[in-house]
Amino acid sequence: MQSVLEVLGELGKAVDPIMIEFLLKDASPEFQEAVLYQIKMGGKRIRPALTVASCLAAGGNIQDSLHAAAAVELAHNYSLILDDIIDHSELRRGLPTVWKKYGISTAILVAVHYRETISQVLNHTRDPKLFNEILAETIKLLTDGERLDILFEQAGRSDEPYILENRYRKVTLEDYLKMIERKTAKLIETSCVFGALSAHADKNIVDALKQYGYNLGMAFQIGDDIIDIFGVEEKTGKKVGGDIKEHKLGNIVVLLAVEELESSEKEQVLSVLRKDDVSWEEVSHVIKLISKTSARQKAEKLKKEYVDKAVNALEVLPRGKYRDILLELASFIEKRDF
Amino acid sequence: MQSVLEVLGELGKAVDPIMIEFLLKDASPEFQEAVLYQIKMGGKRIRPALTVASCLAAGGNIQDSLHAAAAVELAHNYSLILDDIIDHSELRRGLPTVWKKYGISTAILVAVHYRETISQVLNHTRDPKLFNEILAETIKLLTDGERLDILFEQAGRSDEPYILENRYRKVTLEDYLKMIERKTAKLIETSCVFGALSAHADKNIVDALKQYGYNLGMAFQIGDDIIDIFGVEEKTGKKVGGDIKEHKLGNIVVLLAVEELESSEKEQVLSVLRKDDVSWEEVSHVIKLISKTSARQKAEKLKKEYVDKAVNALEVLPRGKYRDILLELASFIEKRDF
Repeated sequence: MQSVLEVLGELGKAVDPIMIEFLLKDASPEFQEAVLYQIKMGGKRIRPALTVASCLAAGGNIQDSLHAAAAVELAHNYSLILDDIIDHSELRRGLPTVWKKYGISTAILVAVHYRETISQVLNHTRDPKLFNEILAETIKLLTDGERLDILFEQAGRSDEPYILENRYRKVTLEDYLKMIERKTAKLIETSCVFGALSAHADKNIVDALKQYGYNLGMAFQIGDDIIDIFGVEEKTGKKVGGDIKEHKLGNIVVLLAVEELESSEKEQVLSVLRKDDVSWEEVSHVIKLISKTSARQKAEKLKKEYVDKAVNALEVLPRGKYRDILLELASFIEKRDF
Repeated sequence: MQSVLEVLGELGKAVDPIMIEFLLKDASPEFQEAVLYQIKMGGKRIRPALTVASCLAAGGNIQDSLHAAAAVELAHNYSLILDDIIDHSELRRGLPTVWKKYGISTAILVAVHYRETISQVLNHTRDPKLFNEILAETIKLLTDGERLDILFEQAGRSDEPYILENRYRKVTLEDYLKMIERKTAKLIETSCVFGALSAHADKNIVDALKQYGYNLGMAFQIGDDIIDIFGVEEKTGKKVGGDIKEHKLGNIVVLLAVEELESSEKEQVLSVLRKDDVSWEEVSHVIKLISKTSARQKAEKLKKEYVDKAVNALEVLPRGKYRDILLELASFIEKRDF
């Protein structure tokens, strides 16, 4: 029997030829390698898989949803190219990021090219005007989530006046949830909505898949945060505590630990987050302090609540193979450790 | 009597409220100032004026074209925000550029926000699918024009592998025309096409305004290049020879001069373009060498040819006040020196 990841991988991979076809539109021959590099780096293709699976679960055919699925995966990769520039990230999935490989100017031009490709692909969906409207709002919110994520950093960016002036010195759970809702949950929600709309689903089905996607997205980001602090390097392929090194108070585990720690240890954590250059030793020390709190259990509990909400939202969908895939995916996101 | 610039200014300014309304959509309160900064810096609003004037000249009403006009002006400003990042430009119209004022991360997020605003505005045009398709191709070509413009630089960007590997050592007139066609003419062409389409114009009228816009755009960029080298600082508000300081062989005047100069002086010009740090004294010396050639006259002649083609394209339009505005604009672009 196939694992849910294999099934998702197959559903998601169906969009690769469409992404490639539209990315190559209006791309000069000597620009093509740079344009395709980001999507050729791989990725789990979870968002397009959600679009296709949502479409199938809502009674549609795969073909109906492929262009919408390609659009959400392109939107995801568009944001990755820009996030890597913004965060000065040099590696992604073990490979140089687009800006690191080609230079910043080229990476910006590639990102612009991705965004136009999204418009071109969306023109092949069932209702281009509606899909364009939804995606435009989604990307605006995604941008705002990224803005908040940066503002929750506690150091760095000394050459960025807007960040220095608007930085959050204190981040509440409410602030955090608003940030991940925008940065992560919204696009995952849209991935599911696009699937439902591609299937001409009734409003109650669209709403159910929207709820499913939103809650799954929230759980997904909380899971990402937990893995960043407590992951196993052999499984994740990256060092633990990257968020601490990047001064992020906008990681749920760090945030909850800071709330719980007594003043002296709380100050130790905050002072590391507020250092311009953080060593990996300091990161380890902070993780030790975090481990003494119940931050991880609280985060796992919150994640589980979102997974449960996602699962419950699927109640109104017709029973069957494709609904099962969505259920399995929720269960995968609950348990994943990489 | 109003000057053509005043008339254009009025037509163009009509789009400001629409740009502001849509830029503020889905923008957090503490992001709004940064979002509006670029369009509040001003600008001649030539592109939206062309959309509105084209719509009127094709028999439409102002109201029919305002959203399309706002979209092209937003697209122009979107490209300016990113170009200023790419070119490390610190000043525009005497004010700090977006990245200089707010920081690079914020400028990138603002640019992304502009692009989504374009999609939202286009959904209020006569045919969102068609207008989206045209604009997506236009911005892809604009991106490619910017890519070529960078590749025609003869030095700098030592940290950008793609540029170092693909740089043009020799730029032909054909290369140059392809670059400015994409970088500049295409969006001006689209501005006119959007006006014609907003007016429900017949195909021959759309084609005529397309030809007008394309040729006007070519003339506009050639004029820009001439002003960069031979402008008067009191009028332009910037130092002459900026393109030389930025190593650009992709300026028609520099290009034609290099073709014409004898080997020793030609090498002097090229060696300045190929220096990583160019002083303003060296820029002056290069301008002196360029002045000995017929590069300026040749460029002026080429510009005039494009203006004539633009004017001729208007032959099929009904005579009247709005066609006269388009004719005056062509004449303004032929003569402008700022």
